[in-house]
Formats: sequence, structure tokens, C-alpha cells
Amino acid sequence: MNKIAVVGTGLIGQGWAAVFAQAGFEVALYDASQEAAERALKAMENRIDDLAEFDLIEPSDAPNVLKRITIASRLEDALDGAIYVQENGPEIVDIKRELTQALDALAAKDVPIGSSTSGISASRYCEHIPGRHRCFVVHPINPPHLHPAVEIVPTPWTDQNAISMVNELMIKCGRETIVLSEEIDGFVVNRLQGALLEEAFRLVGRGIVSPEDLDKAICDGLGLRWSIMGPMQTIHLNAPGGVSDYVARYGEMYRGFGIGPYDDVDWASIANEKLEAKMSKRTPVAEIPEAQIARDRKLMALLRHKKQVGVEASKP
Amino acid sequence: MNKIAVVGTGLIGQGWAAVFAQAGFEVALYDASQEAAERALKAMENRIDDLAEFDLIEPSDAPNVLKRITIASRLEDALDGAIYVQENGPEIVDIKRELTQALDALAAKDVPIGSSTSGISASRYCEHIPGRHRCFVVHPINPPHLHPAVEIVPTPWTDQNAISMVNELMIKCGRETIVLSEEIDGFVVNRLQGALLEEAFRLVGRGIVSPEDLDKAICDGLGLRWSIMGPMQTIHLNAPGGVSDYVARYGEMYRGFGIGPYDDVDWASIANEKLEAKMSKRTPVAEIPEAQIARDRKLMALLRHKKQVGVEASKP
Repeated sequence: MNKIAVVGTGLIGQGWAAVFAQAGFEVALYDASQEAAERALKAMENRIDDLAEFDLIEPSDAPNVLKRITIASRLEDALDGAIYVQENGPEIVDIKRELTQALDALAAKDVPIGSSTSGISASRYCEHIPGRHRCFVVHPINPPHLHPAVEIVPTPWTDQNAISMVNELMIKCGRETIVLSEEIDGFVVNRLQGALLEEAFRLVGRGIVSPEDLDKAICDGLGLRWSIMGPMQTIHLNAPGGVSDYVARYGEMYRGFGIGPYDDVDWASIANEKLEAKMSKRTPVAEIPEAQIARDRKLMALLRHKKQVGVEASKP
Repeated sequence: MNKIAVVGTGLIGQGWAAVFAQAGFEVALYDASQEAAERALKAMENRIDDLAEFDLIEPSDAPNVLKRITIASRLEDALDGAIYVQENGPEIVDIKRELTQALDALAAKDVPIGSSTSGISASRYCEHIPGRHRCFVVHPINPPHLHPAVEIVPTPWTDQNAISMVNELMIKCGRETIVLSEEIDGFVVNRLQGALLEEAFRLVGRGIVSPEDLDKAICDGLGLRWSIMGPMQTIHLNAPGGVSDYVARYGEMYRGFGIGPYDDVDWASIANEKLEAKMSKRTPVAEIPEAQIARDRKLMALLRHKKQVGVEASKP
């Protein structure tokens, strides 16, 4: 009876299916294109095998995980008996509206409908849908099965019970939930990324640092810490008196950098003129899919490592 | 004959000593307080043992690494025969000026003098020093021996040869160098951190997200990626056509967040009113030293992991 509907079977939908099936849920995949759904199910076999290879899933459990994922040929079949719907449609407001309307008409009463959208606040498409109280954003980081973080973003009309239910469901699925109190463009994850990118583009755009060297500042510096603890805990531990002491000591320094406003930073022309050639030299566009696979292998290895480290690092 | 002088033996100086000694250099420690230097050398024994335990140094090599580090009782002894000077004095312009003047008077001709300062551009204290051409910033991330990233920041008068020599030296020491073309407040690392913190403080300050949940957005999300690759490579791999395609697809979305100016964000009062109680509940101030040790153990485990992963993840 614990069934979840995954609507839209691109990379995000596939990642979600892996997450839900691993946690023991039956997963019904639905895609407007039956062929796409079948391709997705096929692709997931490799995905589950990878997880098993990196000890993120019990190898003996892999066939069972796969067996829990099935294709529904009609949307109503996918939704029938589902306790939750994860929608992964295209990032276009009108399509989101139409699709969510259809989901609301077919899903059982009060079953929450979460959208994977990274850029569209749910209030922009659900205001005039009868079941708008159960429509909100449940945003993963791509690929979902390799990033525990999930953002839960209510609209002004979202029922608190729906939020609580999905929060618990996500925690049951091993997710680390970020629950926002209200909608804000970009939510939390992409606002943080956007703030950092804004400054990165400024520095590279002004020619102060090469993109390669800028990447080292994160990958061989800040990112090492940030894969272990967040920025708040980082600064909290970086002053003898904790976070307020940190701000008293360093706040003025940071504010003195004059970060923002960024009106003089033109991302597009900087990308074209300063980034593209160098980045393509490092990884030609044609080799990006290969580099994505290598990235995912490294991500999995990192997750396995963090699992091991959870025990080892607790030594006094 | 390959000797490096480390002047100032706080945590930063100790980290540098470990880096240089591991790379085979003789290290002369000098501190205005002889007692501080002796405490530092004692503390380094544990540090080197930790590195050995986590396979970041050959256990059999540990005693040799320690043997390469000695205390000089006079500044001139520390500098005698040194090919490079790493200065780790207090973060006060007048003290930096006085100390650098003394270093310049005693160090052999053209030996570069790098400062570990995180907040003071070298031009602010070296302009009127005779050897200003060899004075610049060589900024690590704390603790230096656990973060490969090092920023090299020239003043308007810095000799290009000095930059090249120190860049090569750092690479020889296993560092990942970030070479800036000119001085800018905060350099690269802390500007990126500052930009992200600015937005983090805004979100927490407005009550949109708790500090705990905000930390998950990085630690269980963006930080996992960023410990594997920098933000530029991340976005380059996140669009089929690479970085320019990414900006064409998502640039408008990010700019639409309206990040900056931040004049309405008061870090100090947010820290006092919104952060302190919660952060102290997670880690009481008295437990911070303990939490720092746990953090460093995790950092070392992560570095070991990345070493292993370098091979494993390259499987096709």
C-alpha cells in the first residue's frame, strides 16, 4: 500500500525513483511518452548497480529495489493508491499548471503533490487549482539520489499537514530536509549558489583570477569544509566564542569587501569572453557526458566515505 | 640548504611548518616568545601523528618530518640560509609593517617574504620598505596542512620572479595555488565565502530558513559537489553545451533573485538574535575545541578519501 507516483521520468524523476524504491516504497513511473518511461527504467538498472558497487545499497537488495519500480501506462494508474506524488515536468509555468491540475483531479484527497522545480514557486501555477493546499515544491539537487538535501517550500495556501507528512516521508527516505517558512525566488540552495557564482563571475570577469584557480579556492579549500559541515557551523567553530564572536571579529572585514550590488557584472558576456574557451579546453563539450559519469562516481565514493567517516571520526 | 623560515608559531605557523617539513624542507621556527615556539613544536608532534594515522604521511616518515623542524632562538638565525620566509604575525597593520621591515633587513637578497594574512593586503604595510618587491601575501586556509588551497596575491610592486618562485615552491609542497593578478580586499577565498555568508545571513535573518536547515543545503547538497570540483566546473558540467549554455539557460533566473545590495542585512544583530542561541545549543561554546578536533579528523579522513578516489574514480 506504500506507493509513490513519480510523474516525469527524466534524470530527476529517475533519481527520485531510486530514492523511494531504496526506502522500500513501490514506485509507479509515469511519463507522457511511454517510450521515455521505458528508457528511464532501463537506465535505472545501471544507476542501482552503481549504488551497489559503492556500498550505498546492499548488493543483495539491488534486484528487489529494481522490482519495486514499475511503469504505469496511464496517469490514473500511476496515481491509484499513491500516498505521494512527485512531479518532474518541464520547467514551464503553463505546463506545470496544466499538469498539476490533472494530478489534482486524479490523486486521492489530500495526497500531497510535490514539484521538483528548481526555479518556479508553486504559487505561480497552483493558485486557481482546487487542491492548491496540497501543492508545493519538493526540490532535490541533481542527481537526487546522490544528494541527501531536499528543499520543501510551501505556498501561502499549503496545508501544514501536507508539509509535515512529506517532511517525514523524506526523512524516512534518508533525505536531509530544508523546510522554508515561505516562498522566495531560488529557495535556499540556488540562492546560496547564486550568491557565490555572482562573486565568482565578478572576479573572473575582472580578470583577477582564472576560472581554474577560482575553482581551486572551493574544491581544495572551502568545499572540503563545506562537505563536512555547513557555512554556519563552520564560522561557529572558527572563533573561540562561537558565531557572534566570529561576526564581531570578522563581520566588518567581510562587509568591507563591498560585495553587491552586482549591476556591473554581465554574466553572459563574461561567460562568452572569459570562460568558454578555457572551460572547453579543460573539458570539451563533447566530453561532458563522460565527465558527468566520472563526477557521479566521485560523488558516490564521497558518500560512501562519509558513511565510513561517521563512525571513525567520532573517536575522541 | 633547502631551508624555510616560519615566523610566528600560532596554529597557522604550525600548519605551514608541517607542510614544508613534509615536502622535505628544513624548517626554522621563530616566535617572539621562545616559550610559544616550544609549545608549538610540542603540539606539532600530535599533528604529524594524526597525518600518519590518516595515511596522509608515511608512518615511517613521521619522525624524519619532525626532525626537520627546529626552533631558532633569534630571528637572524631563523632567516640565515632560508630560501623563503613565511610570516604569520598578528593581523594588525602596524605590527605587520614593523615585522616585515625586520624580515626585509635580515633576509638574504631577493628571498621572498610571504604573509599568511587573511585580511590585510601587503601594499598596506610594505610600500615604504626597501625590499617591497619581495613582499606579498601567501594566504592559506586554516588549518593550512589540511587545505591544499593557497592564495598568492601580489602588490603593485611585487617582482614577478618572486611570485613564480613561490608558486613553484608551493606546488612542490603539494599546494593548489590560486594566483591573483592584483590585490583585492578579501582575495578570492574569503570573497567567495563572504558572498555566500551574506546571503546565508539574509535568509536566516528574515526567518526563511533555520541555520540548521541552511547548513544542510551546503553540507548535504552543494558542498558535496564543491569538495569534488569548483563552482565553475560544476556549472560547466550542468548544461549540455557547457558554461555559456548554462548561463543562457539559468543566468536570468539567478539574476532574478535580486541578490545584493545587502544594506538591509545587519550581521551582528542577526547573529545575536537569530543564530547564537541555536548554534550554542548544537555545540556549546565550551565544546568548541572538542568539535574542532572532530572537524579536523573528518577533514583528514576526507583528504585520504580524495587520494583513494583519485585512482578509483578514474575507472571508465
